[in-house]
Amino acid sequence: MRELVAHQILWRTATESPDVEVVSPPRRFTYAELHDRSVRLANGLRGLGIGRGSVVGVLDVNTHRYLELHYALSMLGAVMHTLNFRLPADDLLYTVQHAGDEWLLAWEGFGELAMAAEPLVGSRVWLTDRAESPRPGEPTLEELVAGGTATAPPEADGVGEGDVFSIFYTTGTTGRPRGMRYRHRDMLLASLQILHHLGLHRGGAEATAADTFMPLIPFFHIHAWGTAFFVPYLGAKLVLPGRADAAGQLDLIRSEGVTFANMVPTQLHMLLEAAEAAGVESLPLKVLTGGSALPRGLARRAWDGGVRYSLIYGGSDQLATSIAAAPAGDPESEAAREVLRTGTVPLPMVEVEVREADGAPVPHDGATIGELRVRSPWLPPEGYYRDPGRSREAYVDGWFQSGDLAVRLPGGEVYVVDRERDAIKSGGEWIPSAVLEAVISEHRRVAAVAVLAEPDERWGERPLAVVQPSGDLDVEELRALLERAAADGRLARFWIPDRIVLVEQIPVTSAGKLHKTALRERFGLT
Amino acid sequence: MRELVAHQILWRTATESPDVEVVSPPRRFTYAELHDRSVRLANGLRGLGIGRGSVVGVLDVNTHRYLELHYALSMLGAVMHTLNFRLPADDLLYTVQHAGDEWLLAWEGFGELAMAAEPLVGSRVWLTDRAESPRPGEPTLEELVAGGTATAPPEADGVGEGDVFSIFYTTGTTGRPRGMRYRHRDMLLASLQILHHLGLHRGGAEATAADTFMPLIPFFHIHAWGTAFFVPYLGAKLVLPGRADAAGQLDLIRSEGVTFANMVPTQLHMLLEAAEAAGVESLPLKVLTGGSALPRGLARRAWDGGVRYSLIYGGSDQLATSIAAAPAGDPESEAAREVLRTGTVPLPMVEVEVREADGAPVPHDGATIGELRVRSPWLPPEGYYRDPGRSREAYVDGWFQSGDLAVRLPGGEVYVVDRERDAIKSGGEWIPSAVLEAVISEHRRVAAVAVLAEPDERWGERPLAVVQPSGDLDVEELRALLERAAADGRLARFWIPDRIVLVEQIPVTSAGKLHKTALRERFGLT
Repeated sequence: MRELVAHQILWRTATESPDVEVVSPPRRFTYAELHDRSVRLANGLRGLGIGRGSVVGVLDVNTHRYLELHYALSMLGAVMHTLNFRLPADDLLYTVQHAGDEWLLAWEGFGELAMAAEPLVGSRVWLTDRAESPRPGEPTLEELVAGGTATAPPEADGVGEGDVFSIFYTTGTTGRPRGMRYRHRDMLLASLQILHHLGLHRGGAEATAADTFMPLIPFFHIHAWGTAFFVPYLGAKLVLPGRADAAGQLDLIRSEGVTFANMVPTQLHMLLEAAEAAGVESLPLKVLTGGSALPRGLARRAWDGGVRYSLIYGGSDQLATSIAAAPAGDPESEAAREVLRTGTVPLPMVEVEVREADGAPVPHDGATIGELRVRSPWLPPEGYYRDPGRSREAYVDGWFQSGDLAVRLPGGEVYVVDRERDAIKSGGEWIPSAVLEAVISEHRRVAAVAVLAEPDERWGERPLAVVQPSGDLDVEELRALLERAAADGRLARFWIPDRIVLVEQIPVTSAGKLHKTALRERFGLT
Repeated sequence: MRELVAHQILWRTATESPDVEVVSPPRRFTYAELHDRSVRLANGLRGLGIGRGSVVGVLDVNTHRYLELHYALSMLGAVMHTLNFRLPADDLLYTVQHAGDEWLLAWEGFGELAMAAEPLVGSRVWLTDRAESPRPGEPTLEELVAGGTATAPPEADGVGEGDVFSIFYTTGTTGRPRGMRYRHRDMLLASLQILHHLGLHRGGAEATAADTFMPLIPFFHIHAWGTAFFVPYLGAKLVLPGRADAAGQLDLIRSEGVTFANMVPTQLHMLLEAAEAAGVESLPLKVLTGGSALPRGLARRAWDGGVRYSLIYGGSDQLATSIAAAPAGDPESEAAREVLRTGTVPLPMVEVEVREADGAPVPHDGATIGELRVRSPWLPPEGYYRDPGRSREAYVDGWFQSGDLAVRLPGGEVYVVDRERDAIKSGGEWIPSAVLEAVISEHRRVAAVAVLAEPDERWGERPLAVVQPSGDLDVEELRALLERAAADGRLARFWIPDRIVLVEQIPVTSAGKLHKTALRERFGLT
């Protein structure tokens, strides 16, 4: 009998949608070709000794090569370690060691990093479209494809849905990165539910089989938020942008007819900038975005330009949890746009609780902040890999303690307002730094903003706003903006920071997020 | 950790869609109430001694009671035997015995049948909305609900997705009914994929969270083709028609705002008749239909009346397999309507093969007939229950041999033209009786038609058409109709029956299908 195993998806798609394209500039394939290449690649890798349970590190941007490896390694029952190339090199090498990578499959663009892993992993395959290998004697992916036979390897039928498919390490704010091992069934269920939700609910990023998809989220982030599985599963056209910058992504959207993309708000901002620079007035694109609520100004600009968006909430330690859906009524209304920008609806079969300190669920008032925990059929069952201490803290009684703070909107949607570690506890009440940051960032002269907790004798903590201006900026304008937002009910008056400090540059992490730890050090707040 | 277990669906829906309605005339509940009742019912049943592994026969039409039992029995880890009340009483009692039913939960409308099972099952619960029990001393469902506590029974958290959820027996054309045991995961995956497909593809019966659903397929048929799970999963409004006839169903559609219903073609015909009788000119309804291709005349009449349809293919021994999707282009075009009426697209993760006698896949020419086999992650792993002989014949190397004959349309869709046992093998070629029946039924004076195989010395078999006319009917008109269809390329000329016989009444089976076995006996063809 069949099980929920990754390569089953491609087998069926190669039969039912053989001629649909996978574009990976400068190359393009049909699903039938991609399937054939994946089978040959599996046999080639098998010839190197990679097999059931082998742990294989992969370093690449979003290309056909990375996609083929998803299915080839699945057919072998091997474990794919999706290397997070945005980690500092030291942390990256730690993850190679901790996961026990036996092989490194690296794009030549990451050659330096791949060579730095030499003491840990001496066995390499090079991911390149060129004919010759960057290192004589070390095979390339194309050589393995060319040399591999076209019949699925015998291991393929023995892979079970309870086998581990991949391993990934998240950026930790403190300590070393944490590893998560995903079984085939967990990864497929979580990935496919993203698509199913987008298909069944009205929203900004409605998905259908007629769409053309382009993931701007790297494959190492939960396999590009599930795209590596759910687009082939749907049999839809897939465009893989490789290392294209925002201008290149815009070109692909227009030339390949991309109708659906995923990206974090920063990438959306860059894409809109690129469109403006290119004189593109309308960008009809469905965007699944996440990582944080979509800032209001960015949301308005995107919507006015033709972009329709939905917000997703989840993460490496919990996989897919909830996605925005338009409330009843006009999905183009201001109210619907606001819900799509901020609030998410738990996926079917996912239970989300937002609880106050006493354990009581928060009212659906859009104001009372509680801690968010999650239970679903696809939580990684073992918690963190080889890390019982941190696993016990995060996975309690079958629930994942997200460490995120959330409110429930009047329609019941979950609005994640902040990471618990980023929020400010003032007079016993939570002040969500992310909400303050969102309001302050609406000022057109604000390039970046971070709100930190500053110790306070009377209140315990008080917010400190650190602002990176673009051009002249008067702090009093920001204060007036915050006062107006408080008057409009968007924030409580006591949330308004006592101090607003202008800096030349706010540091960012390897994941492109504000590096609050570095900032705290700079302000002596650690 | 959570698993794919039936009652998980209701727990999440009761939290996220508490106020959405489940209508079961004359009563109506919210999902929060339905959840509360299901928990209390579970505890009430538990008090009777029903628990993990208990086999419980259920006899009811589509009501809130039957739906509540789905979730209550799931919480106990009990096995629900969905009794097929359309079987002859003798066969029904055979299934009660074969499944090992320990309890019988019966609607009072089936009281006679329930009493007939007395020697086999003495323990009964009566499904009635009335205050008193039809049998003193035997409890009613309402008493159990009223007496049950509101906290989920302790068994609920221990139920696993590999546990058996339900058992069902299909009508066999030969021999005793065959039983299938469905595990929680198989039933949920198969059910939810129906909804997901309808949400992701353009077609007649597109589904969204904004729809109101009414199953006209009885719950015993794969839980009303998955409706018992996928509507609560979606958090959408559900209307359960109980024993409403076509006029009553029409009333419910109009009064409750039903937008989506499932039904076999016969039920659609009756619904359209009821609409015409009531002077209803437009019936905007999305219909999922199956059991056979939708006859052309019925399809046209339905479409003109506002009905949009999709065809589903599957069955008790394979669960959900494929569903129609509109091809690219205008979904309202004649060509798209024809595909939606006849062809289906395999669900993602389902592999379908249509093979000629030599094992080669049939070309996508819409003409070459082959045998259909299926592989999916939700095939019942043990085959038929306690029936190794017939299991070995039907489940081979992980494939289910459907015994159905199909062609592939030019777009790749699977058009199931006939059951193998119903088709005619003439001169070494298959003649699909169902296609001939569809053409003949287009004549407005044809009330019913069955095409049978008649032994023939020269050809092996030749088709015999048995027609039940409504009013005066000249057999030569039918012959002319068939000749025109052959000229249009809809059938091969050698398919045209040599004999066309008019009869007063064609017998039907318990499932409402033509009773070909009885008809064969009548014509001495067995």
